[in-house]
Amino acid sequence: MTSYWNDFPGIPEALERVSGIMQDVSASENPVISDGLTALFNGDSKLLRPGLFLIASQFGKPQEKLYKLAAALEMLHTATLIHDDVIDDSPLRRGLPAAHTLFGKRDAVLIGDYLLSRCFLITAEYTSPQNAVDLARLISIICTMEIEQNNDRWRSNLSLRSYLRKITGKSALLFSLACYAGAREANAPKEVCYRLRRIGHNIGVAFQIIDDILDYTGDQGLVRKTLGNDITAGLITLPVLCALPLDNSSTLQGIFSRETFTAEEGAAIFDIVRQSGGAEAAGVYAEKYTARALKEISALPPGKNRDMLEILTHRLLIRKQ
Amino acid sequence: MTSYWNDFPGIPEALERVSGIMQDVSASENPVISDGLTALFNGDSKLLRPGLFLIASQFGKPQEKLYKLAAALEMLHTATLIHDDVIDDSPLRRGLPAAHTLFGKRDAVLIGDYLLSRCFLITAEYTSPQNAVDLARLISIICTMEIEQNNDRWRSNLSLRSYLRKITGKSALLFSLACYAGAREANAPKEVCYRLRRIGHNIGVAFQIIDDILDYTGDQGLVRKTLGNDITAGLITLPVLCALPLDNSSTLQGIFSRETFTAEEGAAIFDIVRQSGGAEAAGVYAEKYTARALKEISALPPGKNRDMLEILTHRLLIRKQ
Repeated sequence: MTSYWNDFPGIPEALERVSGIMQDVSASENPVISDGLTALFNGDSKLLRPGLFLIASQFGKPQEKLYKLAAALEMLHTATLIHDDVIDDSPLRRGLPAAHTLFGKRDAVLIGDYLLSRCFLITAEYTSPQNAVDLARLISIICTMEIEQNNDRWRSNLSLRSYLRKITGKSALLFSLACYAGAREANAPKEVCYRLRRIGHNIGVAFQIIDDILDYTGDQGLVRKTLGNDITAGLITLPVLCALPLDNSSTLQGIFSRETFTAEEGAAIFDIVRQSGGAEAAGVYAEKYTARALKEISALPPGKNRDMLEILTHRLLIRKQ
Repeated sequence: MTSYWNDFPGIPEALERVSGIMQDVSASENPVISDGLTALFNGDSKLLRPGLFLIASQFGKPQEKLYKLAAALEMLHTATLIHDDVIDDSPLRRGLPAAHTLFGKRDAVLIGDYLLSRCFLITAEYTSPQNAVDLARLISIICTMEIEQNNDRWRSNLSLRSYLRKITGKSALLFSLACYAGAREANAPKEVCYRLRRIGHNIGVAFQIIDDILDYTGDQGLVRKTLGNDITAGLITLPVLCALPLDNSSTLQGIFSRETFTAEEGAAIFDIVRQSGGAEAAGVYAEKYTARALKEISALPPGKNRDMLEILTHRLLIRKQ
């Protein structure tokens, strides 16, 4: 969905190339793989991570291999989505049937593995060994945080700190790597690379917080999934933590005074969060991380790419889907 | 289970180091990951692939990094086993509960992904880019062949050619890479590397054929799983193809004249294969590939490592588990 980028000069064209590479690198004579991936790649991904990577790379010198690496990032992201959907039994992804809905869980696990291997193929061929190492480490951390999240299902007494740690690992780190690796592969100055890493982190944390908010207050037509998925799956996210001091009925406090909660209590939590303004309170955190990102962005060398990063950061904060 | 290698001078000690590296590289503060992998690594894997890798590397010059790469191969193999067990719902692995039996499918998929990422971490850090590319390609092929195998479930009219293609992709290629990469990373002469690749391929094909035979005729106490797993899962393997001309009742031919077969017919196939000598006929193929491997081995530079390879190849042919 490169139209998301229409007012970013040059980016839609660059992302079209990235999409082409994703199709080429993932091409397979096996119809399950090729049909499955074509369906996924044609879904409505905004290509945020490769977009960030490409903008960040403009702080250095343009290079042909950058398109390939941008593709590798999106392929990694897609692989994790495929496995997530298998794990969570989500029937839809990006407005289309999920891989396991189309091909069964058996093949979906394998298609995810296939995509991971193609992502590594690109990094082994084109990236600096250090970026390949970073990417491999990142995947380890994503998996670890997802497992930690699974362990925390139906646990009620979670801390803000533990929430932030999990969303950093499972989501913000990939934004952070996209910004950092884009600049580094393009040989941007070191301090710019490090600044972009911090920018990516802050954008990523805000992004995930908004994701978690939209699960409570989103427009169902726009987010195209049922609301309340997190709490139904036993996951406490920031809107719940923010609702805790706002809930006059003390029901939430009662639940949090124990270690675990039930599916029935989960349904109650959903209503309390919506009524008490927990989602809005969580929005303040998203604004805080966005402000941090914007502050770092303002310290980048001025130019078209810095402007794009600023516009994108604003846009991600007010997104509705 | 380094005792398998007791009469191979130096190999048990080398494999102990490899096991140590596997534990270290996979170490995680997350208890699910660390407990899960400790359980898996303590199962009774013979460490065949790293063993082959280390023997092959002795055709070149010893190097510290070789132990790490041998570990990466076994970690890749273990990751594929974890995902296989999730996919096939097998409760046991290496005589111990499978990862998903211990931690649920959700975490098992993630532990497999984690292990894959650690495997790539090692190759990115220590191997030549070409070997990292080869490894990534290999994983793509393994996934593709596993998906092809899934597509072929309950299909009866399969050819020998399609069977050999699948077992080459899902199993023999890893043996082939173990032999080839071991020699190449140790800077062995090119012709030796290529010969070792062919040797690995032939050993690997024979290995998988014997696996498929043991699913029909194995000693249940030794193979530690129920016999007939393949046909119960709808998979036609070599013993069935070999039983086809041997079955006097023509039942098999009847089934093969149609495109698919049922679970009930699967149970009949199991009995026919055992009674008609299909497994023994399949053994002739295993012998043929073993003979090819031995012929190539005899053309390698003579020495302790060549002798070990010969003994191992013989031993794998007559294995009972």
